[in-house]
Amino acid sequence: MKATSKIAIFDTTLRDGEQAAGTRLGSRDKITLARQLARLKVDIIEAGFPASSPDDFESVRRIALEIKGPIICALSRAVPEDIDACGRALAKAARPRIHTGIGVSDIHIMGKFRDDRYGKTLAGKKAKLIAIAVESVKRARKCVDDVQFYAEDAGRAEASYLFQMLEAVIDAGATVVNIPDTTGYTVPEQYGALIAGIRENVPNIARAVISVHCHDDLGLAVANSLAGVRNGARQVEGTINGIGERAGNAALEEVVMGLRTRADYYGKTTSIDPKEFFRTSRMVADMLGMPVPANKAVIGTNAFAHSSGIHVDGFLKDRQTYEIMMPADVGFTESRVVLTARTGRAGLRSRLEKLGYELTKPELDTMYQRFLAVADKKQEVLDEDLAALVHDELPPVEQAYKLEYLHCYSGTTAIPTATVRLQMKGKTVEGASIGDGPVDAVYKAIASLTATKAKLLRYDIRAVTGGTEAMGEVTVHLEIGARHVMGRGASTDVIEASAKAYVDGLNRLG
Amino acid sequence: MKATSKIAIFDTTLRDGEQAAGTRLGSRDKITLARQLARLKVDIIEAGFPASSPDDFESVRRIALEIKGPIICALSRAVPEDIDACGRALAKAARPRIHTGIGVSDIHIMGKFRDDRYGKTLAGKKAKLIAIAVESVKRARKCVDDVQFYAEDAGRAEASYLFQMLEAVIDAGATVVNIPDTTGYTVPEQYGALIAGIRENVPNIARAVISVHCHDDLGLAVANSLAGVRNGARQVEGTINGIGERAGNAALEEVVMGLRTRADYYGKTTSIDPKEFFRTSRMVADMLGMPVPANKAVIGTNAFAHSSGIHVDGFLKDRQTYEIMMPADVGFTESRVVLTARTGRAGLRSRLEKLGYELTKPELDTMYQRFLAVADKKQEVLDEDLAALVHDELPPVEQAYKLEYLHCYSGTTAIPTATVRLQMKGKTVEGASIGDGPVDAVYKAIASLTATKAKLLRYDIRAVTGGTEAMGEVTVHLEIGARHVMGRGASTDVIEASAKAYVDGLNRLG
Repeated sequence: MKATSKIAIFDTTLRDGEQAAGTRLGSRDKITLARQLARLKVDIIEAGFPASSPDDFESVRRIALEIKGPIICALSRAVPEDIDACGRALAKAARPRIHTGIGVSDIHIMGKFRDDRYGKTLAGKKAKLIAIAVESVKRARKCVDDVQFYAEDAGRAEASYLFQMLEAVIDAGATVVNIPDTTGYTVPEQYGALIAGIRENVPNIARAVISVHCHDDLGLAVANSLAGVRNGARQVEGTINGIGERAGNAALEEVVMGLRTRADYYGKTTSIDPKEFFRTSRMVADMLGMPVPANKAVIGTNAFAHSSGIHVDGFLKDRQTYEIMMPADVGFTESRVVLTARTGRAGLRSRLEKLGYELTKPELDTMYQRFLAVADKKQEVLDEDLAALVHDELPPVEQAYKLEYLHCYSGTTAIPTATVRLQMKGKTVEGASIGDGPVDAVYKAIASLTATKAKLLRYDIRAVTGGTEAMGEVTVHLEIGARHVMGRGASTDVIEASAKAYVDGLNRLG
Repeated sequence: MKATSKIAIFDTTLRDGEQAAGTRLGSRDKITLARQLARLKVDIIEAGFPASSPDDFESVRRIALEIKGPIICALSRAVPEDIDACGRALAKAARPRIHTGIGVSDIHIMGKFRDDRYGKTLAGKKAKLIAIAVESVKRARKCVDDVQFYAEDAGRAEASYLFQMLEAVIDAGATVVNIPDTTGYTVPEQYGALIAGIRENVPNIARAVISVHCHDDLGLAVANSLAGVRNGARQVEGTINGIGERAGNAALEEVVMGLRTRADYYGKTTSIDPKEFFRTSRMVADMLGMPVPANKAVIGTNAFAHSSGIHVDGFLKDRQTYEIMMPADVGFTESRVVLTARTGRAGLRSRLEKLGYELTKPELDTMYQRFLAVADKKQEVLDEDLAALVHDELPPVEQAYKLEYLHCYSGTTAIPTATVRLQMKGKTVEGASIGDGPVDAVYKAIASLTATKAKLLRYDIRAVTGGTEAMGEVTVHLEIGARHVMGRGASTDVIEASAKAYVDGLNRLG
C-alpha cells in the first residue's frame, strides 16, 4: 500500500476552469496563478490548450518556461497539429506532459464523428477511433515521455469498449489514463465501480496511473472523485473553487480536504499545502470576477461561521461538536493580517510576493503610490484590496484609452450627468452625457467619446471587502463580433471603478 | 416497491437555511417564500423554530395559517417549553408536524450535556437522553399526530446507541426519524451503510419513515443524501441553493434533479415541479442577499452554458453530447419573458403573483408607479428587477426614517460630497458630508443626521440583471448591541440604492 498511498493532484483551473462561460484570463494573470498553484504544491498544472489560440500557446510556453516544481501539462485533441503545438509550447518545460484523447461514448462517437471518414457504422467508427488514439499517443510520446490520455465521456461509455481503448493507448505509451465524467452524469457508486472495473479488466493497467475528472452537473463531482480514489484512482483532476464549463469541475479544495479530514477512511495523502487554499481561491475569484459564495464548502466565508444559538452554544462548549476542520488549516486566519499606511515599500512588496505577484521596480513604485492613496482612505488594506489594486493598476495591455478626468452628479431629483475626459491615442477628448443612473451616464459618455462598437454584455459590481470605505470592484464583459473581453476596475468610488472597468475592457479590445 | 417509490421532499430553507451566518428573513418574506415553496410542491415546509424568538413564533403561526398544501413543520429541542411553543404555533395548520430531537454522538453528548443532571458517566447520560427523547416525542404527540425525531450528529454516533434511540422514539410515537450528518463528516458509502444499518437493526423501523439531512462541509451533502435514498431513506431534507449553517445543507434542486435525471438508477419519484426551481432559487437569493454562483449545479446561470470550441461544436451536432438536463426543465426559459412599459396593471399583478407576491390594492398601486418609472428607463423589466422592486417598495416595517432628497457629486479630482434630506419621525433634517467615495459620503451624511449608533458590518452591492441600465441592489448588515438587521435598496442609480438600503436597515432597527 505504501507506494500507492499518495494521490496526485492535477489542477486544470487554467484550462477547464477558464472554459467557464464568460471568463478569459490574460497571459499575465495565468502566470501569476500558475505561480500560486506551484506554491499550493499541486502535482500537475494543466496550463492550457496551445492549438486553440496564439494567446493560449504563448501562456503555456511562458508557464513551461517560468514555473518550476509541478509537471506542466498541455491539452490537445487527437489530431497531429494539436499535439505538435503542445510539443512546441512545452519545449522548455523541466517536466512536460501532453494530454490528448478522444470521445469514447456512443453518444460522443455518433455525435462528433458522424463523418464517413471515421467509418460508416458505429463498430467501424469505434475501431477507427482506437487507431487515431494510438497514433496520437505515439506522436505525443515522440515529443515528451509523459503522455496522459483522456477517454472523453467515459462516464456514459460502453465499458468493454472503454477497456479496449485504454489497453491500446497504454500499449502505445500512455502513462496516465484519464476517465472523465464529461457531462456529470454518473453517481458515486457507478463511477467507483467504473474505476474498479478498469483495474480488473484492462490487462496492462498497472503500467499507467488512473486519473479521475468529474463534472458537477448533478452536484456530485467531489463525491465521484472520492469514489474513484476509493476504487484505485491515483490522480484527481479539478479546479480551484470548482469553476469550469457549465456547473464546473470537482473543487480541488473539497477533494483534498475530504481526503485529509477522512484520512481514516481513504488512507491517502497528497502533497498539497492546504494553508494556500484561501489565498488561491480568492486569487481565482478575483481574476475571473467570479466571487466565492459564502456557503462554499471549505473556503466560503461562512464555512466556519456558526450563528444559530444551538450551534454557537455547542461550539463554545466543545469546538468539535460542529466543526470537523480548523479555519487555519485552509489559510483563513493569515489573510486577516492587514496593512496600513505605515507599512513601508518593502512590506508591501513582501506581501505582494506572498500573494503571488512579482512586480518590477517601476510597477512596484506605481503600486506603492496607489497603496498609500488607499491606505490613507481606509484604516486597513486587506489582501483582497491588494489583489484588486494590482489587477487595476498593472494592465497587461497597451492603453489606447486612458481615463484622465471624471466628474459625476446624481440624485433623487437630478438627471444623472457625467463629464469625462479621455486620452485617446495621444489625443484628448472630452464630453458629457446623461443616463439612467451615474454609472449609465459615465458609460454613455465614454461610449460616445470613443465611438466604440463594443456591446456591453454584462456589468458586475461588488464590494471587495465589506464596508462602504472598502474597494468597489467592477467587471464588464464587452463584445465586438466574435471578440469577447473582460475589463476590470477598482476604486473606493464605485463610479470611478465602473469607468475604469469600461476603459480597461475597451483597451483589451484594442 | 410501488408503495415506497416516492421520496418526500422536506424543505428547511426557512429554518436551517436561514441559520446561514448573517442572514435573517422578516415575517413577510418568510410567508412569500413559503407560498413559493408550496408552488414548487415540496411535501414538508419546516417553517421555523418557534421557541427561538417571538418573531419566529409569529412566522410559523402565520405560515401554518395561510399556506395550504404542504405539511407545516416546526423545530424544537427536546425540552417541554419548545415543544409546547410548536404546538401553539402550529394550532391552525391543516397538517402540522413537530420536529424534536437530541444529540446522539459521544462528542455531542459529552460536549452539550456535561452537566451531572444528565448523568455522571457517558453510559448514564446515554440512558438519560433516551428517556428525555421518549418524553419529548410523547409530549409532541399530544399536540400533533405527526412527530419527526432528529438524532443530532447521527453521522458520528455509535451505531448501536443510535439504533436503540430510534427504536425507543418510534415506540413513543415518532412517525419520521431524521438521521442528520450534522457536521458534514460522513462520505457517501458510510452514510448509505448507516441508513441500511438502521433498516436492518431497528426492529420497529417499518413504522417510521427514514429521513436524511446532510451538510456540505466536505462538499458531499447531495451525494450523501442520494446514498441515503439508495439505501432506504424515503424523505430528503435540504434547502434551496444549498444555503444554511456553515457550508450549508444539501441543495434540494440538485437532489431532485439527480433523482429525476438518474431515475434509471434510483427508481424514485418526487412530487416536485422542477420548473419552479429557477424562480424559487432567485427568490431565496434575492431575499437573503446571497447571489447564486454562476457555476452552481442545476440553477446557476452557467449551468447550461457552453463556451469552449470543442463543447460548442459537439453541442451543436447533438445536444446530448454535453447536456444531461434541459434548461426549461428547471424553469430557465420562462424567466426570460420580459415586461415593458406597455404592460398594464393587470399584467404586472399577474406576473407578481406568479413570482409569489400577493399585493393589496394600495401596494399594487405603489408598485405600478415604480414599475412604470423603471420600465421607462429600461427597455425590459425582468423578474429579478421586479423582485428587487417589491422588496424595496414594500417595507414590512414602520418607516421612522424616510429618504426625501439625495444629491451626490464625485470624480477623479473632486472630494466626494453628498447632500441628504431625511424625514425623521415627522421632522425634516438635512445636511452634507464628504467621504472616500460617493457611497461613503452618503452614509456619513445619513449617519450624522440620524445620530445612529448602528455599526455597519457589511455592505454588498450587485447589479441585478446585467447592463448598467439595470437595477443595482444593495444590502447592508447593521448591528446595535445584540440586534442585527439587514437593509435592502434597489435603484437604477447605485448611489440611491445604497442610501435606501442604509435607511431601510435603520428603519428595521426601529
